[in-house]
Amino acid sequence: MAGQAKKSPETPVASRAKSKGEQTRRALIDATVDLFQRQGFAATGLNQIVAESRQPKGSLYFHFPGGKEELGVAAVRCGAGMVETLLQAAITPAETPRAMLENVAVLFAAELEASDFTKGCPVSTIALEATEETPNLQLACAEAYSGWLAMIERAFVAKGMQPDLATRRARLGLSTLEGALLLARTERSTRALREMIEDLSPLFEG
Amino acid sequence: MAGQAKKSPETPVASRAKSKGEQTRRALIDATVDLFQRQGFAATGLNQIVAESRQPKGSLYFHFPGGKEELGVAAVRCGAGMVETLLQAAITPAETPRAMLENVAVLFAAELEASDFTKGCPVSTIALEATEETPNLQLACAEAYSGWLAMIERAFVAKGMQPDLATRRARLGLSTLEGALLLARTERSTRALREMIEDLSPLFEG
Repeated sequence: MAGQAKKSPETPVASRAKSKGEQTRRALIDATVDLFQRQGFAATGLNQIVAESRQPKGSLYFHFPGGKEELGVAAVRCGAGMVETLLQAAITPAETPRAMLENVAVLFAAELEASDFTKGCPVSTIALEATEETPNLQLACAEAYSGWLAMIERAFVAKGMQPDLATRRARLGLSTLEGALLLARTERSTRALREMIEDLSPLFEG
Repeated sequence: MAGQAKKSPETPVASRAKSKGEQTRRALIDATVDLFQRQGFAATGLNQIVAESRQPKGSLYFHFPGGKEELGVAAVRCGAGMVETLLQAAITPAETPRAMLENVAVLFAAELEASDFTKGCPVSTIALEATEETPNLQLACAEAYSGWLAMIERAFVAKGMQPDLATRRARLGLSTLEGALLLARTERSTRALREMIEDLSPLFEG
């Protein structure tokens, strides 16, 4: 039987096997990002992640031998990537930095509303919870913010903003967005996000 | 013996007893605020609160029969009061809304730096962690923000700002402050707080 098997089919099998492992790993990370976004790092237990991801418990330790912090870092990076996708969707069709700001706020507002005000920024809760006892988590959050800032900055410069001003406006835009998301979640209203578009407009024009 | 006791000394004894109970309650709340500010609600265990407050464990259930959420609500209210004190300190000496904004950011920056970037806003972490499973906590956070907003708004109006604009600027100032505190904690630098003073200045003048 083994002799009958050709070499070629082995590659797909290996690829399927790898892909299944990848799928399991991905399911664990996705469930973690979702739980982090709704309730944060500390409230999220490994049993809950296993249950929500519908994966066997052993798979968690197999894929993340470093335990919760290692999975947490992967989830923060995945959340950071989700925000990068959202930023790209906001940046691509925009003609001006002001339009980019508006698109970002509108996209976040839509996500917050669609989740009944449970899902804001997938990184901010973790950034506020991280302590010196979870240094890798702290670093992953810092990297998420610096990645977004670099991305926004480049987009502003591409629309003709001076680099120094682009750095400042990217930082102001991100600060206000993060605070408005916090306020919007707490108020259960997208008002703060709608207001920030209008209020910051004069600083993002021209 | 009982007959020898006069009525008058009983009052001080009762008052001392009440005062000791008040002190215990206060110590529990203070320890909780401190832990919430550094690591959030979910990471803070009742044993840790008891240990840090140096109070007997039974006192926690005596003063907060509703357990962690009840103590959490008291801690959020206490944290909200701490911010109100800070806001008052920022507002009182300021001649203009712009100076108020600057003073608030400078005071928060000083506290963040003094705590080696562990202590930002005493409410924001809890606001992001709160879910429908902790409705009282969610409400306490919402009340904290609306209380601060009302206070800032009144101060802006007292300096001659139109009421509608004062509402908007109070909300923008709070959003940006909360986001800048988040960024500052993550970056371990007060840069975001220093920048927001300068960047928002044009919107808070005149």
